[in-house]
Amino acid sequence: MSYKNFPMVPRVIFGRGSFNQLSEILAPKRLSIHAPFIFLVDDVFKGNAWLTSRIPLSYEDKIVFVSTIKEPTTIQVDDLVEDIILTTKALPSGIIGIGGGSVLDLAKAVSIMLTNEGEAKDYQGWDLVKNEAIYHVGIPTISGTGAEVSRTTVLIGPEKKLGINSDFTPFDQVILDSELTKDVPTDQWFYTGMDCYIHCIESLTGTYLNTFSETYGNMALELCKEVFLENNLTKTESEEKLMMASWHGGMSIAYSQVGVAHAMSYALAFLLGVKHGIGNCIVFDHLEEFYPEGVTLFKAMKQQHNITLPQGICANLSDADFDKMISITLNLVPLWENALGKNWKTIITPKKLKELYQKM
Amino acid sequence: MSYKNFPMVPRVIFGRGSFNQLSEILAPKRLSIHAPFIFLVDDVFKGNAWLTSRIPLSYEDKIVFVSTIKEPTTIQVDDLVEDIILTTKALPSGIIGIGGGSVLDLAKAVSIMLTNEGEAKDYQGWDLVKNEAIYHVGIPTISGTGAEVSRTTVLIGPEKKLGINSDFTPFDQVILDSELTKDVPTDQWFYTGMDCYIHCIESLTGTYLNTFSETYGNMALELCKEVFLENNLTKTESEEKLMMASWHGGMSIAYSQVGVAHAMSYALAFLLGVKHGIGNCIVFDHLEEFYPEGVTLFKAMKQQHNITLPQGICANLSDADFDKMISITLNLVPLWENALGKNWKTIITPKKLKELYQKM
Repeated sequence: MSYKNFPMVPRVIFGRGSFNQLSEILAPKRLSIHAPFIFLVDDVFKGNAWLTSRIPLSYEDKIVFVSTIKEPTTIQVDDLVEDIILTTKALPSGIIGIGGGSVLDLAKAVSIMLTNEGEAKDYQGWDLVKNEAIYHVGIPTISGTGAEVSRTTVLIGPEKKLGINSDFTPFDQVILDSELTKDVPTDQWFYTGMDCYIHCIESLTGTYLNTFSETYGNMALELCKEVFLENNLTKTESEEKLMMASWHGGMSIAYSQVGVAHAMSYALAFLLGVKHGIGNCIVFDHLEEFYPEGVTLFKAMKQQHNITLPQGICANLSDADFDKMISITLNLVPLWENALGKNWKTIITPKKLKELYQKM
Repeated sequence: MSYKNFPMVPRVIFGRGSFNQLSEILAPKRLSIHAPFIFLVDDVFKGNAWLTSRIPLSYEDKIVFVSTIKEPTTIQVDDLVEDIILTTKALPSGIIGIGGGSVLDLAKAVSIMLTNEGEAKDYQGWDLVKNEAIYHVGIPTISGTGAEVSRTTVLIGPEKKLGINSDFTPFDQVILDSELTKDVPTDQWFYTGMDCYIHCIESLTGTYLNTFSETYGNMALELCKEVFLENNLTKTESEEKLMMASWHGGMSIAYSQVGVAHAMSYALAFLLGVKHGIGNCIVFDHLEEFYPEGVTLFKAMKQQHNITLPQGICANLSDADFDKMISITLNLVPLWENALGKNWKTIITPKKLKELYQKM
């Protein structure tokens, strides 16, 4: 048996206001005055001087605002890379992602594609990346999905939604400043936080679980319960705890895997563009038979925060659409195997999947 | 306010038997056939073919067995470094520590001193190391002290017991194979495990605590309770959980600090050579007034495992000895400040310390 040699983020700074230390962190990483730092920033922060005025810009550094209305795509990565290459005199000194999972995944992918030939879609899969990425920094502004700590960057390609999983993917530096999450709207806060919660349930009940992942998963799960079920935290405490839940939840899948909710929501994202957080919630809401305790608790959290999930999103799909979704989800073998064991195909059939999707 | 930018171990492998992957991990790190890997191995494994036969030796690689009867010293580090420089044709490709906290700390210190001038004692303190260390790997064979994850290497120097704390100290690679801990004698298992437990109590009740450290501390504490108080784990489960407790406990002090037990036991180590694990236990046993709940639980664990701590170790000390110990411990300002706040000097006086030591 061979175990994964897991790459961890080698530098992390945690604290309210630690974003102010970005300048001192980047300074020693500047390669030359012609090698800029490129800040990929979620465009919800456009015009938000509280954040943007604190981004340290020197020489030819620049901010690129990124729309996150849709899930990030391989084409978006290729466009960003092309634009950087055409407008800078030297390879950048670093790529800094400031945003949620979409922006963080884009930052990771761009830093990889600046030093690897071809197109981003060529690298969707496991360990296909050849060269070390450009120095890259992750600064989450919303908590839950764990992109700040993972060795993947999930992208929608022409043929599949799949991550660039590699040892070069993780950030070289992460800044965990929970103050950056203070203005996240409730719905988004809930959906993204539930992504973490669902990671924990899928990891902790999975067949791939080991003690390493279990300890991180337990910790993240406890934090999710504190944040979403107990009502005795201040806003700051809640923001800090959810940020740590995201971090530990991401570590928990290092040695395990996600499961049914992720497998099914990937296909929703690919076909319908449903975003990751809400997609997981829509699916998980119907998975009592696979995760009975987890779904019960999820429904309680949903109720407590008055969250109404969209209904009937698959109502108008054609048979061809269903077939496409089913084919995409069945391809995610490790997720199914983790969730249901080696004999998962006896439980999960195309018919079964169609019935589940039709409820959503 | 400025937050620490904490260096994490960038690579970790976890799993029963993962020690067998050492060869494939080291191979790409070999700099030349003249640049050997030096394996510092706890001499309890001398003649233990189960372990030593699996250490991959090629070219001029060698095993150096290290006695851990005493706490590691700066002189021991200097001697090891001198010996390596005199007997190898090139700087080593890597230093691999296989053992408990003492061996791991020696491996970290040796890897630093091979690239930094002068003597190890010159670097006891915070951030005094100038150059990057040689590639170094940590493989714990006993769990609890957290040396595998920390940014310090605690050494007894001519004037003090103090760590070489630096960003270059953490291992480049850690292998967490709990099978290596299977033959640890009960007493040592308990003392070293309690080092982890005491870390958690000191960290979680300290004034330096933040949410980052708190989450790791809570997790490690829960694992310690499972291992030392609940009786429903298999031997393998218990070994795996204690290994993770050590890891998370070490992370918990990343952003916090240890406290009263460590401050007082450092002086016992310096003056009497009392080893770290047992020293912490001897001290902690008398700290009800500072850690009431923690000490109660500690006594319960001690009883459950029939542990009898040495008594009267300070019985024959002279006033000069007490003065020396008190002076050493009072110098550890961050530990006292973490434990008791800014005004700790109003609580901890030389008289108070002497009374406490006299009980031990």
